[in-house]
Amino acid sequence: MDAHVLTGRVVTMTDDEAIDDGAVAIERGAIAFLGRRSELPERFAPLPPRRAGLITPGLCDAHTHAAWVGSRHGEYLQKLRGEGYEAIAARGGGIVASMRAIEQATVDEIAETLIARLKRMAALGVTTVEVKTGYGLRRALEEKQLAAIAMASRASGVPRVVPTLLALHALPPEARGDDRARAEYVASVGALVRASRDRAKFVDAYVDRNAFRVDEARAVMNVAREVGLGVRMHIGQFADVGGAELAAELGARSADHLEYVGEAGLAALASAGVAATLLPIASFVLGQAAPDVPALRRAGIRLVVASDANPGTAPSESLPLAMAFAARLYGLSTAEILAGVTTEAARSLEVEAGALREGAVADVVGWDLPHEDALLQPWGTGRTTFVFCGGHPL
Amino acid sequence: MDAHVLTGRVVTMTDDEAIDDGAVAIERGAIAFLGRRSELPERFAPLPPRRAGLITPGLCDAHTHAAWVGSRHGEYLQKLRGEGYEAIAARGGGIVASMRAIEQATVDEIAETLIARLKRMAALGVTTVEVKTGYGLRRALEEKQLAAIAMASRASGVPRVVPTLLALHALPPEARGDDRARAEYVASVGALVRASRDRAKFVDAYVDRNAFRVDEARAVMNVAREVGLGVRMHIGQFADVGGAELAAELGARSADHLEYVGEAGLAALASAGVAATLLPIASFVLGQAAPDVPALRRAGIRLVVASDANPGTAPSESLPLAMAFAARLYGLSTAEILAGVTTEAARSLEVEAGALREGAVADVVGWDLPHEDALLQPWGTGRTTFVFCGGHPL
Repeated sequence: MDAHVLTGRVVTMTDDEAIDDGAVAIERGAIAFLGRRSELPERFAPLPPRRAGLITPGLCDAHTHAAWVGSRHGEYLQKLRGEGYEAIAARGGGIVASMRAIEQATVDEIAETLIARLKRMAALGVTTVEVKTGYGLRRALEEKQLAAIAMASRASGVPRVVPTLLALHALPPEARGDDRARAEYVASVGALVRASRDRAKFVDAYVDRNAFRVDEARAVMNVAREVGLGVRMHIGQFADVGGAELAAELGARSADHLEYVGEAGLAALASAGVAATLLPIASFVLGQAAPDVPALRRAGIRLVVASDANPGTAPSESLPLAMAFAARLYGLSTAEILAGVTTEAARSLEVEAGALREGAVADVVGWDLPHEDALLQPWGTGRTTFVFCGGHPL
Repeated sequence: MDAHVLTGRVVTMTDDEAIDDGAVAIERGAIAFLGRRSELPERFAPLPPRRAGLITPGLCDAHTHAAWVGSRHGEYLQKLRGEGYEAIAARGGGIVASMRAIEQATVDEIAETLIARLKRMAALGVTTVEVKTGYGLRRALEEKQLAAIAMASRASGVPRVVPTLLALHALPPEARGDDRARAEYVASVGALVRASRDRAKFVDAYVDRNAFRVDEARAVMNVAREVGLGVRMHIGQFADVGGAELAAELGARSADHLEYVGEAGLAALASAGVAATLLPIASFVLGQAAPDVPALRRAGIRLVVASDANPGTAPSESLPLAMAFAARLYGLSTAEILAGVTTEAARSLEVEAGALREGAVADVVGWDLPHEDALLQPWGTGRTTFVFCGGHPL
């Protein structure tokens, strides 16, 4: 029998309370039992239990740029010395540097790097990862990234991958200061979105000062909605240029970053039910103040916490590190952070994940920690004792 | 032949420059060759090389309290809500809570927990770890921790362990507000130091407001020097009570924390050649400002960077995370941080480690990173591709 019994304190992330002396039984890749250890069905009794201090749903990382290749370590040091993200980008660093690396790599190389990264993420307890394109900045290269993401998502031992097309990530170098080239690029992205309906689940756009305008993002996102793709948006990382209102207008699943969003923008997000995805590793690296978390709470906005894994502003692979930063730097509670990396993240990605329920596919993580509060500490290394990802043990 | 060939960019941490297309050959546990790949001796040519982007000496973590058991996650959340370390300690939390856990655990249990932790540290690239006692706070329990540290250090697959007796870590509960009990405890520690000459390499003391006074530490440290043990000290984490001057007077190998040390203290450390061990994870967790790094540099003090791994103020196991924080929060350069976790850390621990040299025992780490600057990014997970620890591959 392909079955496993896991025991420990079980946090289901459903309405049920945590079960201190709990058990989870997995049979043929699905959760067959969930409850007190004393109530474990007899057929599982002969199996030696795998013990963990704490058992949770697999984590969902709802915002990553994990399909990068190369390294931007030199630029990282420039950032630490106080050089601005936008100044570095203006010199051909930043996103354009990663575009050059994607240009030079083969699809296989991009996929291989991504698979290794996804495996490290899985070992940290992450069983669902959203992965954006956005280092192509031209149609052929965005499609190259999409192909690599698709290839990586079929590898064994990697988390479930949710692909997002982020062709509106940065202006292509040839469109800087050239309005016509800029308009052509935005139009080409509309066509790319149409052609990507079967390879992407979401379309994302970076709407900010020195990135794309509201009208440009709207044009692309209208195509996304027309072909049935979901909408996510980077907004307010450096300035409030109306991104929140656009995200609300478009019924985006998530608006991400939000360091600079005014009250009107927050009210718009709240009334449209757009989740806020918070990215504390990026604001730590950039030395930014936290978003206005009390205002987000007052507005009743759902909160997601994600790694933002990327080679520039969040050169990290760890959703647990983002959780530790969300606690320490953003003042989020354990309950907010746990929901933000499970149920709320899954809801924003429109996937069935983030909660433990009988009958569900087994995305289950055991931790060498006694309580969910201990998950928020900055361990800096994996504390998992076992990870079941899509029904299979890693 | 028990031999291995490693290739990549080699940073030796000697006076030699980094070798971009380098190779390291390991034979019977020692470094048999170190140089350009093109100059690899012929006898190693048949071996399939293990490739890494970057090869460095194994890292040395020169300040940890890694021999703890139990978890203080509830207290961590109190700290994030702004409750003071000293207020938590006054309520029986803090170090005394870890003392209760040591009291209830067996030596085997403490050793087993420590071995698992040391293995996670080794996987992160750490091949030498200083481990302090200090959760005993009475002779029998301090000896229990020493015994567990000795047991763990004999396990296979763990870093080299440097044991430090830190019986002067916090006042035992029975000595709070009782001057006679306090004096008795300090006197008992003197006797403990004398009895521990073969089980500890260093003696440490926490000299601070609400910890031990200069005269108490001096009495114990004079015994340490008498029996030939080295001196390390926790100073100036919360207030300058003269710890730096005492560390200088005693010829301490290292003075650690240093958030609050005045110019006179720094001058004393500098003139006595005492290294400063910086612990950025602790100041991050406590929300403290960084030590005055420019003043440390001006004084010409050698800098060590360590994890401070402990269940309260640095619930972490990652020296690489401390390196990332040292870059981002303390403004240390790559060269300072690399030396601080290799040569300077080893010097402060009086061990032969921290540099790659032909003939030396192979403590060698390969990283899936192209350059040492990339080591400083907050990965939040291990980026090693191989770790040789004491001559053996992990």
